[in-house]
Amino acid sequence: MPQVIVVYESNYGHTERAAAVVAEGAEQVSGVSVRCRAVGQVTKDDVLDSNALLLGTPVHMGSVHWGIKRFIDEVLSGLWSQDLMVGRVGGVFATGGGLGGAGGGCELAMLSMLSVMAELGMVLVPLPKNSEGFARGGLHWGAYVRCATSAQAQTDIPDHCLPLLREHGANVARVAALSASRPTRSAFDRTTTHTFTRRST
Amino acid sequence: MPQVIVVYESNYGHTERAAAVVAEGAEQVSGVSVRCRAVGQVTKDDVLDSNALLLGTPVHMGSVHWGIKRFIDEVLSGLWSQDLMVGRVGGVFATGGGLGGAGGGCELAMLSMLSVMAELGMVLVPLPKNSEGFARGGLHWGAYVRCATSAQAQTDIPDHCLPLLREHGANVARVAALSASRPTRSAFDRTTTHTFTRRST
Amino acid sequence: MPQVIVVYESNYGHTERAAAVVAEGAEQVSGVSVRCRAVGQVTKDDVLDSNALLLGTPVHMGSVHWGIKRFIDEVLSGLWSQDLMVGRVGGVFATGGGLGGAGGGCELAMLSMLSVMAELGMVLVPLPKNSEGFARGGLHWGAYVRCATSAQAQTDIPDHCLPLLREHGANVARVAALSASRPTRSAFDRTTTHTFTRRST
Amino acid sequence: MPQVIVVYESNYGHTERAAAVVAEGAEQVSGVSVRCRAVGQVTKDDVLDSNALLLGTPVHMGSVHWGIKRFIDEVLSGLWSQDLMVGRVGGVFATGGGLGGAGGGCELAMLSMLSVMAELGMVLVPLPKNSEGFARGGLHWGAYVRCATSAQAQTDIPDHCLPLLREHGANVARVAALSASRPTRSAFDRTTTHTFTRRST
Repeated sequence: MPQVIVVYESNYGHTERAAAVVAEGAEQVSGVSVRCRAVGQVTKDDVLDSNALLLGTPVHMGSVHWGIKRFIDEVLSGLWSQDLMVGRVGGVFATGGGLGGAGGGCELAMLSMLSVMAELGMVLVPLPKNSEGFARGGLHWGAYVRCATSAQAQTDIPDHCLPLLREHGANVARVAALSASRPTRSAFDRTTTHTFTRRST
Repeated sequence: MPQVIVVYESNYGHTERAAAVVAEGAEQVSGVSVRCRAVGQVTKDDVLDSNALLLGTPVHMGSVHWGIKRFIDEVLSGLWSQDLMVGRVGGVFATGGGLGGAGGGCELAMLSMLSVMAELGMVLVPLPKNSEGFARGGLHWGAYVRCATSAQAQTDIPDHCLPLLREHGANVARVAALSASRPTRSAFDRTTTHTFTRRST
Repeated sequence: MPQVIVVYESNYGHTERAAAVVAEGAEQVSGVSVRCRAVGQVTKDDVLDSNALLLGTPVHMGSVHWGIKRFIDEVLSGLWSQDLMVGRVGGVFATGGGLGGAGGGCELAMLSMLSVMAELGMVLVPLPKNSEGFARGGLHWGAYVRCATSAQAQTDIPDHCLPLLREHGANVARVAALSASRPTRSAFDRTTTHTFTRRST
Repeated sequence: MPQVIVVYESNYGHTERAAAVVAEGAEQVSGVSVRCRAVGQVTKDDVLDSNALLLGTPVHMGSVHWGIKRFIDEVLSGLWSQDLMVGRVGGVFATGGGLGGAGGGCELAMLSMLSVMAELGMVLVPLPKNSEGFARGGLHWGAYVRCATSAQAQTDIPDHCLPLLREHGANVARVAALSASRPTRSAFDRTTTHTFTRRST
């Protein structure tokens, strides 16, 4: 049974709420089991038990919250060194004030989380523009939710972003389900799908 | 039958040679059919007939060759506007002089190709560090081949990079094979795997 | 007398118009001379005669227009190989539909132009958030102008973006003016400002 | 008198040593005063007293050490909200194992620090390729030092990287010196260099 874990850091509760909606979307893919956890409560084993990881952060100064970075350095790096996440599935989401109307640095913030997932050897799931609500709240790298007015007053997650967050969670769960039946948990299962013979060096 | 297309631009033949090796790796995944084409010969239909796209470029001034960018603007953008590549599979590779020993801008060059694939809604396949030869010729975003000495004299593709290129082609083909049997060609097949009901907006 | 060149590619005239406003801002810095040119008309010597370069593009599929990339590969790369732009001043701007409300890939598009400028050894001028109009039309890497409604209908450059474009042009011109009196045209003038003695290797 | 502060996080002492060499380079620019501090000891006022900031990190999982990110979130963000660093000067450096021969993610790690500096409105100083030692240890975004063999055994900072680190520190100090005499400490001094009049909105 495919397992999805949604991990988030939150300042004012926006990313926590976004994580819950992402998790809700993942749960609606049949046969998938989902957990949703604040970053400080997540152990190496929690990640290791999962076929897919969804990571969410507030955008701080054009990058992730430092709590996400500590999780990467202290928890995920151990899985990296042993190649334990190779071929599993990853996706990212973020919330932020988005000062300036062009995302306020959310693109590089999302890329810094996807970069870690690429280092882990994980298959990356972006956010297609035909997802419901994309025109008002999306970015191709993942779901981005702006929780502020143009005058930077904080707002809740706008309703029009909810379908987008759900869809993103569901897409990640779908890709996880594709490969989850394999003994290796990896989309790159080298034992069963090819007849590759190395011929040089 | 899963179809993979390898598309490249080349200056001195290095990226062309790399593309051939990537294609060779993809071919060795059982049941996969592979084409390898110079960027100027690739039509919209060629891409549309494929379950996976591998895109390769020389690194020029920290970014892709302009021929790759023209292909993106003139061929891929039409597929983007109609959402025709959503849920298909993508991967990238690059060659370069790598002046400075830190990749010479290959990371952002690869990201600019992955960015297009993310805009297309494609699932992205990185390069796991446990791939053979990674320690001497890899980057997590895809296969990178340095074709120069530290004095910037051009060299052929080093032998130790061949397994890496093959493995990358094979990984992309494996992920393509996972979802290729579906009628939609998409890893996000929304018709069969979930019971998602939108409840808001 | 400090020379600034504004170079742009344009599809529908938006980036051309933005370039004119950026140039207008640069001109208002006292003592600065400014040219504004479409990318296809710019030679190596035009760039070489300038203390500062402002480069502007429409955002296409999360990256620059291919015409900008061709200019980089065919014109700027020659200046790179001879280190002729080291210590000069650069800045970037972009226009786009901005689908999704988070910039639609403008951040990586701007970075791919700044990357080239960094390769050239140029000092990079970002866009401070205390610039007039930033809250509605800015990104920290440079001026970004969204020329579309949320339904993706094309619009002209919004009036609220004009001060931002001018300010960005002016900032780049100001930094260019700081170092323009030097014989080397470089902000890193190694002949006059330090007593550095290499002591190793 | 221009003030430069070098701020670093370090795991095994490599980045600390690199910071000392960067600081040494900055000191050799005449008239410049330099401090070098571990990230945990740096206050808001330390940064505010400086005309230039050099930030250095080990590369962890394709991004900065979490201690650097905490410094950004807890110290620099306060300066951002009040626009106190606008027009000052910034540069970055990094050390790492560089697994794979293509920098191991150092490019995005450096960009995440430059992104913060751009958000602060700082002028960014890259590393020109005609710097001594660049061919063996440079990246255009800043100085990168590989402290490992291709088999990932740790090494000290190679001697051939020392001139590069010094040159980078010196370049940042030179640009800081250009504008340090101004009352605003900003390279964008809006009070003295232009006759800009806003004419719209």
